[in-house]
Amino acid sequence: MTDQGFSLFEITLQQRAAAVEALLGELLSDRSRTGEISRPPRLMAAMRHGVLNGGKRLRPFLVMESAALFGADNLAALRVAAALECIHSYSLVHDDLPAMDDDDLRRGQPTVHRKFDEAAAILAGDSLLTYAFELISDEATELAPSARLALITQLARAAGIGGMTGGQALDLEAETVKPDEEGIIRLQAMKTGALIRFACEAGAIIGNAGEKDRERLAEYGSAIGLAFQLADDLLDVTADASRMGKATGKDAAAGKATLVSLHGIDWTKRQLAGLIAQAEELLSSYGASAALLKDAARFIAERRS
Amino acid sequence: MTDQGFSLFEITLQQRAAAVEALLGELLSDRSRTGEISRPPRLMAAMRHGVLNGGKRLRPFLVMESAALFGADNLAALRVAAALECIHSYSLVHDDLPAMDDDDLRRGQPTVHRKFDEAAAILAGDSLLTYAFELISDEATELAPSARLALITQLARAAGIGGMTGGQALDLEAETVKPDEEGIIRLQAMKTGALIRFACEAGAIIGNAGEKDRERLAEYGSAIGLAFQLADDLLDVTADASRMGKATGKDAAAGKATLVSLHGIDWTKRQLAGLIAQAEELLSSYGASAALLKDAARFIAERRS
Repeated sequence: MTDQGFSLFEITLQQRAAAVEALLGELLSDRSRTGEISRPPRLMAAMRHGVLNGGKRLRPFLVMESAALFGADNLAALRVAAALECIHSYSLVHDDLPAMDDDDLRRGQPTVHRKFDEAAAILAGDSLLTYAFELISDEATELAPSARLALITQLARAAGIGGMTGGQALDLEAETVKPDEEGIIRLQAMKTGALIRFACEAGAIIGNAGEKDRERLAEYGSAIGLAFQLADDLLDVTADASRMGKATGKDAAAGKATLVSLHGIDWTKRQLAGLIAQAEELLSSYGASAALLKDAARFIAERRS
Repeated sequence: MTDQGFSLFEITLQQRAAAVEALLGELLSDRSRTGEISRPPRLMAAMRHGVLNGGKRLRPFLVMESAALFGADNLAALRVAAALECIHSYSLVHDDLPAMDDDDLRRGQPTVHRKFDEAAAILAGDSLLTYAFELISDEATELAPSARLALITQLARAAGIGGMTGGQALDLEAETVKPDEEGIIRLQAMKTGALIRFACEAGAIIGNAGEKDRERLAEYGSAIGLAFQLADDLLDVTADASRMGKATGKDAAAGKATLVSLHGIDWTKRQLAGLIAQAEELLSSYGASAALLKDAARFIAERRS
């Protein structure tokens, strides 16, 4: 703890978030980098509203800290982090649409389709998704072509059929056919776990780490991804809406099965403790340089909002 | 003309279409290539409905014929063609949504949100878009990493803010602030031209062509892309709905300015003739091997549906 009461982890999280937001604000301005083409101003405003929303930027933090573990605290890590946040943000913009979760608020602000309109929200989401791949593939992301390509392959898998959108689809299907425990775990590993796993593996790719390290970081990502979802399910049961900045109790109201509803609060807390231990164990060979990633695991498992 | 009354161009277009559809059907089956992971069946069905809809597959044809011009009539060309069709199809699935064009029919079949539901259509579109990048980046697309990366960069640009989605956004904005002639041309070059231009440039990249050839193919793509849009605007005025398999007269009903509404039918036909001549001139140095691409220019400019 520092004098202000913030931990080094919290300060670093805020610094990383500020760096990613500065880059995204610049990249998504009304003028392109060359300044030659003026962009559709309303589309750009909708994209910025969707992505520059004061999120914690946990996924970017994981990309940058994982890359730093292998000595790559650089522009490439920042750009990949920004691309990942574009993917995460697009999924929220589309998730909030009336045909999906039908949410009016996100972090206390009107959602994109409420501030603009549905068509703008659909297009802004599509554009953020597309832009993520443009951002990584561009040669300004100073990485070897093979590394940029590996990142694109892994990101597309994590965000697509076998990952996020596949998990979202399973989630919709779960409203009619309730999944068993294995089904819930698989659904959550896809829906929220895949992008978090990607974030950590991406750092290893950016840092040109070996296969073993890459696998270890991916496994760490899987552990904290599951912890993230368990903590989320727990908060849905225990937190109040004002702290979350969004509606709570929605899972139960929707009759949605979660591991918390299956096993209860105490079991979930023990699972979370086990996942923190597992994450720490996976990072043990990196010593003190992995301290903030260990903090991140605890932060994710114990978060209150 | 052959005995059956089909030209070599028409036969080749059908053959290319069949090859792309076979590949897409295989890639988008309920089981992944490894067969290990069973995919969300309803999502896969929605994706297949969106992409396997009996389209002419003009963009895939352009990719494959342009690649063949440089001796690359191979699996890589077919996979990039399939990826491009995923992008084109996702844009139609999202375009048809109630918040966008609100169309019930596409090629005489119910649109994805009519056959499934809106949430499924949003997710299927997102998944097709994401899958396009997975498809190109995968090492099964047997191209050097630098070539795969160049394709991804160009595709993301053509499909995103500075291309298709940017053009769609300008189109929405045009409903309130009418664009002038320059604005209409720019909007159309982005909205429909960019992907067609990409198709032709992609062939040159796949064929490992030099900078000069790559530029020439991209210019050819721009010319036929503009011709495509002019022919479309003309059909909206002159064709009947049964032949088009979709509603006609929508531009006029929406008060939408097109070059046809500005300059009339005769001017548009002269423009189309000029664009065919320009496309042929750009291909003149390739001799007889570019015959089908020249046919494609005429087909696009003179199409009746």
